Amino acid sequence: MNTIKSISFIGSGNVATNLARAFYAAGVPIDTIYSNTLQNAETLAGIVDAEAINDIENHVFTSDLVVVALKDDVLDKVLSKATIKGSLLVHTSGSIDTATLKKYAGNYGCFYPFQTFRKEVETDFSEVHIFIESNSEESTLKLYNLARILTSKVVEMNSYDRKSLHIAGVGLNNFTHFILSVTRQYCIDNHLKTEYLTNLLTQTVNNSFYIENALSMQTGPARRGDLEVIKDHLERLKNAPKYRKIYKTISQLILDEFHDEKYKL
Amino acid sequence: MNTIKSISFIGSGNVATNLARAFYAAGVPIDTIYSNTLQNAETLAGIVDAEAINDIENHVFTSDLVVVALKDDVLDKVLSKATIKGSLLVHTSGSIDTATLKKYAGNYGCFYPFQTFRKEVETDFSEVHIFIESNSEESTLKLYNLARILTSKVVEMNSYDRKSLHIAGVGLNNFTHFILSVTRQYCIDNHLKTEYLTNLLTQTVNNSFYIENALSMQTGPARRGDLEVIKDHLERLKNAPKYRKIYKTISQLILDEFHDEKYKL
Repeated sequence: MNTIKSISFIGSGNVATNLARAFYAAGVPIDTIYSNTLQNAETLAGIVDAEAINDIENHVFTSDLVVVALKDDVLDKVLSKATIKGSLLVHTSGSIDTATLKKYAGNYGCFYPFQTFRKEVETDFSEVHIFIESNSEESTLKLYNLARILTSKVVEMNSYDRKSLHIAGVGLNNFTHFILSVTRQYCIDNHLKTEYLTNLLTQTVNNSFYIENALSMQTGPARRGDLEVIKDHLERLKNAPKYRKIYKTISQLILDEFHDEKYKL
Repeated sequence: MNTIKSISFIGSGNVATNLARAFYAAGVPIDTIYSNTLQNAETLAGIVDAEAINDIENHVFTSDLVVVALKDDVLDKVLSKATIKGSLLVHTSGSIDTATLKKYAGNYGCFYPFQTFRKEVETDFSEVHIFIESNSEESTLKLYNLARILTSKVVEMNSYDRKSLHIAGVGLNNFTHFILSVTRQYCIDNHLKTEYLTNLLTQTVNNSFYIENALSMQTGPARRGDLEVIKDHLERLKNAPKYRKIYKTISQLILDEFHDEKYKL
């Protein structure tokens, strides 16, 4: 009774693709893939042996579980056109309050895999935390059992805390990615082998995120308030405008954190 | 002839401490430790069985190698008071032009271990790249042989490229450290276990710094131009001002990179 025996997906993007592939590989039947663009629905449906649709108004979802994996800002628009009969309906978003699904289904919840996904790369879910929430104990148990097929790291979490987690993930993933990918390009443009920086990067991550009071261990020219070195670096970076903008902006953030308002770039 | 048989250090900070300890452990005698503060010199000298001095004007350095490991902005001031007789003189800085040492010694160079150091933590140099440079082939060979005692990763690099490397290291280490340590504190303040974020962090680093054209794989609300989610997050972050400032500033950097000037926070 507490087992999900079939799943449909509303959405065919990075999250839907990786979840559908993983469940299909684990032997859970996938019924239907909806996308606004039929070709996208067909691509994913072809992989997981499902029906592809793009006309949501003329479809009745009856799978045990319907996963809506759309951008937050179109979710309501699409769901208001969907007919969901008896299914448990879950979203996959960090920021949406799960109670907003109440108007679309009697049983509703959240199934939030905390990782970045790309269609091109098959995700190994065994290392991924999945955060679940629902309106009833029975639905939570169903989601727990389903998530456990993919990973042992299943955590029940309410919408308030999940938003905090999402916000932390933005810093950890999006901001770090932005800085590191621009730094990488700077290295390539300046003929520096990325292998020169590997060891420093590894130690940085170990020191920054896993040590008590890590902020007090901040180092570097901005931490020291060494405006002369920073300005010398900014001068050198005149032909690397992307990295220069990051360098100047974040140096100022660090100066603001550790020094008084006289330290301006 | 191409072997360094004794070393003195001008400076007793994080870099000097870690280098002196590592060479001492490898059997290279350490003669003298200079620090402006005698107690600091004595602390390090006690560990590596050396003489501690704080009166540089009444000392003559005669070791095979003199390593000056001071902050860039005091290096000239201290070296101008030092008497160096026949020693090879090297600095350990990413940004200093090695030729500036010419006025202090006949043989001079750079010995730049590319890592962050803390006195409290013993560095395993075997994974650290050391970048060397000098004014003569003979001195370069001596520095190469010396560095090889600590690591197989020894690279000859000129001052121009070394400054590029240092600038890249600032982004990779200082900026990443700042963001991750503040994000960590945000997690702790919001009762989120850091283990929830470990897997995402690992994948982020792998995707950001080691993949071609990583910037094109940027994700997140700022990449999508999703101002509604960003503003919702900033609203939530009103009681987390440090992280809020980072969130707002770097989101704007990403918006600027991927969207037009209408996307302002």
